[in-house]
Amino acid sequence: MTEPRWSEYTLRRRVQFYEVDSAGIVHFSNYFRYLEEAEHALWRAAGLSIAPPDAEVGFPRVAASFEYHRPLRFEDEIEVHLRVEAMTDKSIRYGCTITVDGRRAATGSVTIVCARRQPDGTLKAASIPPAIASRFEVARTEV
Amino acid sequence: MTEPRWSEYTLRRRVQFYEVDSAGIVHFSNYFRYLEEAEHALWRAAGLSIAPPDAEVGFPRVAASFEYHRPLRFEDEIEVHLRVEAMTDKSIRYGCTITVDGRRAATGSVTIVCARRQPDGTLKAASIPPAIASRFEVARTEV
Amino acid sequence: MTEPRWSEYTLRRRVQFYEVDSAGIVHFSNYFRYLEEAEHALWRAAGLSIAPPDAEVGFPRVAASFEYHRPLRFEDEIEVHLRVEAMTDKSIRYGCTITVDGRRAATGSVTIVCARRQPDGTLKAASIPPAIASRFEVARTEV
Amino acid sequence: MTEPRWSEYTLRRRVQFYEVDSAGIVHFSNYFRYLEEAEHALWRAAGLSIAPPDAEVGFPRVAASFEYHRPLRFEDEIEVHLRVEAMTDKSIRYGCTITVDGRRAATGSVTIVCARRQPDGTLKAASIPPAIASRFEVARTEV
Repeated sequence: MTEPRWSEYTLRRRVQFYEVDSAGIVHFSNYFRYLEEAEHALWRAAGLSIAPPDAEVGFPRVAASFEYHRPLRFEDEIEVHLRVEAMTDKSIRYGCTITVDGRRAATGSVTIVCARRQPDGTLKAASIPPAIASRFEVARTEV
Repeated sequence: MTEPRWSEYTLRRRVQFYEVDSAGIVHFSNYFRYLEEAEHALWRAAGLSIAPPDAEVGFPRVAASFEYHRPLRFEDEIEVHLRVEAMTDKSIRYGCTITVDGRRAATGSVTIVCARRQPDGTLKAASIPPAIASRFEVARTEV
Repeated sequence: MTEPRWSEYTLRRRVQFYEVDSAGIVHFSNYFRYLEEAEHALWRAAGLSIAPPDAEVGFPRVAASFEYHRPLRFEDEIEVHLRVEAMTDKSIRYGCTITVDGRRAATGSVTIVCARRQPDGTLKAASIPPAIASRFEVARTEV
Repeated sequence: MTEPRWSEYTLRRRVQFYEVDSAGIVHFSNYFRYLEEAEHALWRAAGLSIAPPDAEVGFPRVAASFEYHRPLRFEDEIEVHLRVEAMTDKSIRYGCTITVDGRRAATGSVTIVCARRQPDGTLKAASIPPAIASRFEVARTEV
């Protein structure tokens, strides 16, 4: 019997004071951190860590984007909806929607690639190990 | 006689320790902060501040993206090349290339809109004031 | 009948990837953010926000310190224990202990003062409004 | 002939937008990053990197504190004065004064210890290697 594969995760968290800039809204760079928090929670739900102490591979980001529809403010309770939108042998693309009070605040996307550290310290693209790839699948739902 | 308009800026700075993550490379969210640093330096070069104490308008971001080609590491000396790629009555789109040792490390884009704070605290799109719009123009060069 | 006053709060949260530096441990500056997260959760538990939209007073920090006993790592589940250690008419001093797996990782302290914004934009020390001061009291327990 | 030892460094830099919080002043946690920037600039001035790629030892912080006298705001040009205040076989204590427009904005202190990574991943205090210790000396001046 096989375990179910994961394709979605919803992280609930509150906007912290140090994430808000002097315009009174969450600094645009922090949305990428919110997406990443949801990604790592998805991996934990799937029984994995994206960066275990003895990791042989890492997952650097090769592309990241957000569109901002509505500001987020201090103490807002937000939901970060993450979905696996595409997978290849070496990469995963996530889609992300951040909502506040049920309304869409931002939509984003991040693509990660599997990389193995070479003896000279540089990173080289590698196949995602089966123990990781087998835990995820592309989400069927659209948001 | 009119002052020249600004369309480009190159910021030189060094990667700081707290910007590097546990994989030994600059965290992907920080590239957006590098772009913003260059943007604000461009505005200062043009004789402006993007957020003066008595600001009547602000410039929230509506879209932001980066593609990552090469990692940046602690103490790397980087150049952040920013260009005005497009302007409308209400918005500016910047293109950005980050290089290290003359090699392209990342390319990105950010779009800002001019917004005026309403009495109820919400932001509403507004025309860029002439004193600001007149200081910039779209860059002619491609990178 | 009066509501109980608050003097302690324990925040549970997980170490995020972007909080860890290239040495593989949480960057020392982030402990101050953990303490602040616990402070704002304490205020919410007491029915307050430390920075409501229509705030007449703010609470800048006048002193902050941490001693670091044990490193925190990615995905560690930590507890941030915050206590009101002292209160005056104008200030509150918090003590903080951060633990991981029940072991003390760091101990810190932050002192905040109540400040009112003057017409010229500067901040001036002010008495803590009764609606706020009446919600807290000094913790009796030692940690 | 011996090279001079270093005991002080003054870093000049500008406050960035993402360092300012919704109260319009630099978030108190960022002062610790400013101090660290000055520390690493001091090490570079002395011909060293505090975290070279092939480092055998690292320098975790064991204590950090700041007192805040005056707020720092967006685009302020600040000076971060760092001094070696004390050295032992295994540790260095820095003192730090941050000024803006020649006026003292904050005073702080950080103590680092030399640590060697053990085979099991834990850190163990170690003597500062002579090639590093010989580059610094305690500052004679008071600020």
